[in-house]
Amino acid sequence: MRLTRALENLIEQLQKLPTIGPKTAQRLALHLLKVPEAQAQALAEAIIEARTSVRPCSQCGYLTEADPCVICRDSTRDKSLLCIAEEASDVMAIERSGYRGQYYVINKAFSLMGGNRLEDIDLAPLLDKLSGGEIRELILALNPDIDGEVLARYIAGLAAAYPVRITRLAHGLPVGGDIEYTDEITLRKAIEGRKEI
Amino acid sequence: MRLTRALENLIEQLQKLPTIGPKTAQRLALHLLKVPEAQAQALAEAIIEARTSVRPCSQCGYLTEADPCVICRDSTRDKSLLCIAEEASDVMAIERSGYRGQYYVINKAFSLMGGNRLEDIDLAPLLDKLSGGEIRELILALNPDIDGEVLARYIAGLAAAYPVRITRLAHGLPVGGDIEYTDEITLRKAIEGRKEI
Repeated sequence: MRLTRALENLIEQLQKLPTIGPKTAQRLALHLLKVPEAQAQALAEAIIEARTSVRPCSQCGYLTEADPCVICRDSTRDKSLLCIAEEASDVMAIERSGYRGQYYVINKAFSLMGGNRLEDIDLAPLLDKLSGGEIRELILALNPDIDGEVLARYIAGLAAAYPVRITRLAHGLPVGGDIEYTDEITLRKAIEGRKEI
Repeated sequence: MRLTRALENLIEQLQKLPTIGPKTAQRLALHLLKVPEAQAQALAEAIIEARTSVRPCSQCGYLTEADPCVICRDSTRDKSLLCIAEEASDVMAIERSGYRGQYYVINKAFSLMGGNRLEDIDLAPLLDKLSGGEIRELILALNPDIDGEVLARYIAGLAAAYPVRITRLAHGLPVGGDIEYTDEITLRKAIEGRKEI
């Protein structure tokens, strides 16, 4: 394939993004050459600007331009509820559910298989918050997989020293899901957690 | 969902790309915030650089930084073969097949349903080339769909005034394909075009 160096480089850079394979990268690159110059420019600038201005909030770790973030500044939110999330994308999903408490974002993917160690996760700011006395419930919103389970138990162990209720998200059938296609572990958890109607 | 303006803007810009939906755009944006700053910067610069330096070749319409392009400059290629392609991406695919002639890239998607008119396609440079007398065969490498068919017949009609052989890519079974799952029109073309073994 004969390509110009600049086009080759653009395809290569696009291919570094998750979910973008060689064919999609080529398609995106050619698209970027075809759109109005202003649109390509806008994308390039958006990348630079996001990198320059977006930082983790010093209080909760969520992504923000102003510090503290809009969630930490919001006085109408429940200060007694603290939700532990692994990533900013998890916070976005939880926000859509209507949750109105605070967050603590770990901002570090934890993977036992990836060789991460529990001790490498800096939870000192979390323990600091807990010792403040304002928080009454710690909600562990970690992924429902082995890594999330291990991390949840580790955090629950550390938090046990403080007078807080420690909870985690319920397991069960996803709304709109299909019992027939639900895996056995989820189904077992759904039966264990069954509720009176 | 509470997002910073810069992050929202990045997601919005990414979503304008083909094949990128809202969820992928969010994932890509958060990824770009997480990777080393140099990698995000490299992508932004690659976009700008490709837009600045890559232009259609003045001779064949293929994308290039130097004009004429590397294909037009290559003296070992067959000057008597001219392949008509709709887009640069088609040229890339044809190059991978080992074709060693010249190209003429239309650089304009043609779609009857999209309201394009045949008269809007500027074929004057093509007719100019044909009148040069060097070209002996015109290969119409247009997509095997209705639009490609219409465009092929239009170009063949115009080129009929010149002493060139006009050919088009063969229809038939894709290599590695499966007869059982081949559509009836392709199969009919494959039978019509059958060859002695």
